[in-house]
Amino acid sequence: MRATVLRATRDIHLDDVPDPELKEDGDAIVRVVAACICGSDLWPYRGQPEIGGPRRIGHEFVGVVEAVGSAVSTVAPGDFVIAPFAFSDNTCAMCRHGIHTSCENGGYWGDDDAHGHFADGGQGEIVRVPMADGTLVATPGQPDESLVPHLLTLSDVFPTGHHAAVSAGVTAGSNVAVVGDGAVGLSAVLAAKRLGAARVVAMSRHADRQQVAREFGADEVVAERGTEGAAAVREIFDGRGADQVLECVGTGESMKQALLSARPGGRVGYVGVPHGVHLNVPAMFGRNIGLVGGVAPARAYIEELLPAVLDGTVQPGLVFDQTLPLDRVADGYRAMDERRSIKTLLSL
Amino acid sequence: MRATVLRATRDIHLDDVPDPELKEDGDAIVRVVAACICGSDLWPYRGQPEIGGPRRIGHEFVGVVEAVGSAVSTVAPGDFVIAPFAFSDNTCAMCRHGIHTSCENGGYWGDDDAHGHFADGGQGEIVRVPMADGTLVATPGQPDESLVPHLLTLSDVFPTGHHAAVSAGVTAGSNVAVVGDGAVGLSAVLAAKRLGAARVVAMSRHADRQQVAREFGADEVVAERGTEGAAAVREIFDGRGADQVLECVGTGESMKQALLSARPGGRVGYVGVPHGVHLNVPAMFGRNIGLVGGVAPARAYIEELLPAVLDGTVQPGLVFDQTLPLDRVADGYRAMDERRSIKTLLSL
Repeated sequence: MRATVLRATRDIHLDDVPDPELKEDGDAIVRVVAACICGSDLWPYRGQPEIGGPRRIGHEFVGVVEAVGSAVSTVAPGDFVIAPFAFSDNTCAMCRHGIHTSCENGGYWGDDDAHGHFADGGQGEIVRVPMADGTLVATPGQPDESLVPHLLTLSDVFPTGHHAAVSAGVTAGSNVAVVGDGAVGLSAVLAAKRLGAARVVAMSRHADRQQVAREFGADEVVAERGTEGAAAVREIFDGRGADQVLECVGTGESMKQALLSARPGGRVGYVGVPHGVHLNVPAMFGRNIGLVGGVAPARAYIEELLPAVLDGTVQPGLVFDQTLPLDRVADGYRAMDERRSIKTLLSL
Repeated sequence: MRATVLRATRDIHLDDVPDPELKEDGDAIVRVVAACICGSDLWPYRGQPEIGGPRRIGHEFVGVVEAVGSAVSTVAPGDFVIAPFAFSDNTCAMCRHGIHTSCENGGYWGDDDAHGHFADGGQGEIVRVPMADGTLVATPGQPDESLVPHLLTLSDVFPTGHHAAVSAGVTAGSNVAVVGDGAVGLSAVLAAKRLGAARVVAMSRHADRQQVAREFGADEVVAERGTEGAAAVREIFDGRGADQVLECVGTGESMKQALLSARPGGRVGYVGVPHGVHLNVPAMFGRNIGLVGGVAPARAYIEELLPAVLDGTVQPGLVFDQTLPLDRVADGYRAMDERRSIKTLLSL
């Protein structure tokens, strides 16, 4: 089969690799229908940090089950399935706490699983899925093709935006600000509105992203960044700030902007992978600003978010502004690296 | 009247100062019945940082109302009242959010109020209380003398421990660890048990403090500190860690210990005034450890905590292991500085 391999910084190819096979009784083999490129894939693509050698990449995909091991009971060949960006058993103490990304037997695509078998990256034609019962969620019946992009967001960006909102405590009537206009930030806008937020301020300087934010329900858009942007958010919320701020970037600057946008007693829900974030703890303490979040347990949220996707109540797939065939994956990375694309879908 | 004045590092005296007078229609004059010394008073006492000149000190007191301004309606002369460690109007947006320490018209004892009038420190004979309706909570009738120490803890340490527990999300069935065996840490043990925690681990090396922790309901005591202490906490909780960790010290070491004691998805509720705290944000992110808390809005919690104090369900005043007359306040500071006293009550 063919799968995406990051050979070195900004050197990415669709290579021929061995076909995956069932290794354990709990495995499934999934033929990928659609995958996509994540903002977090850009860190290794850009050499931050440099990778030590060629590695498979990609962690978001939906597909159709081709084969299952003898112990698999919740999915069967022919099922359309959503794979979250980490695999997990969905039974251990951490999964029962809803922290599937800390599953005691889990791991990440493109790494070895707990048995030492390689788990394929998601940007390829076929993936061996460890612990299929715990990892995969099947849709009821075969979804219409038009639903595929929306379902694909359940792999990562929609639940990740949702995790930011849930972690920060967004609820009916909340005043929310979202830092970051990437696919996760936009998804966080959608998630906050879905949870009943009264007013959501999206922070974005780009017309195309502002438009998606509006479609996702953003009530206001703030184009300023940094301390100016935070001041604009506070002004919108009576000079005090947002109840919840969803930090969806992960840089020191974006975190500072998020903390300054929150009212006293507010919470920052953060899902941007932190790079160079240093917190002014005394300032947070003095204003009772909480910081909650982390790597999103996407699997924990798929069942909750799926119905609204299936019935069209939400259309999270609007984050995809470019679709390419898998063999043009390198073009997709370039477009996202150069911020010409919010998020690129890879079709198979 | 006489009031405590910190003249310079470790140089503290009970001095003659002008009698406070009503300045605004919302003021009250309170004759102090009991005050106490806070762990946070030890920072300026120890010169961390050095004070610029003599200043009044103390922020925890209970007393009897002597006079009220014409606009005061909720307390009257003769009432026994509890003063939280900050004054607040209890009506502004921040107070309505329960963040009275960020009151838009509030302030701290020993500083000027919003009108520029000096608000006396709490370790003195008489205190002018700004915004008495918002600040003070009267008990129903005159409390028995034996209740005074317990009521006095409602000024600060009991609600502060409670704030750590509430911020971290302690609820029925929680597995909790408490870092810090000062009066606030011990109060956090009591608060967590009161909120229904299933198991509370107190971290303490001192027999006298361990005993109070046990009386407050601690199920286990861990004497080790730092990474060893955190490992011991994790071992108690099935190798995973506590659902909630209450950080009641405020040093870099204690915060590290707290973060390492939490399970993935757990939360650290912190109320120790941070001094030199640097957070490993990527590690927090990877394990979804939240950090919530800050300077406790004691006023927000007094009504909730008062009934259990009045009926003896809880006895938070057990944190006082020494009672001195106010004129021996300097001895009280010395005893607490040298850790010979957990917390010293000053009687008048």
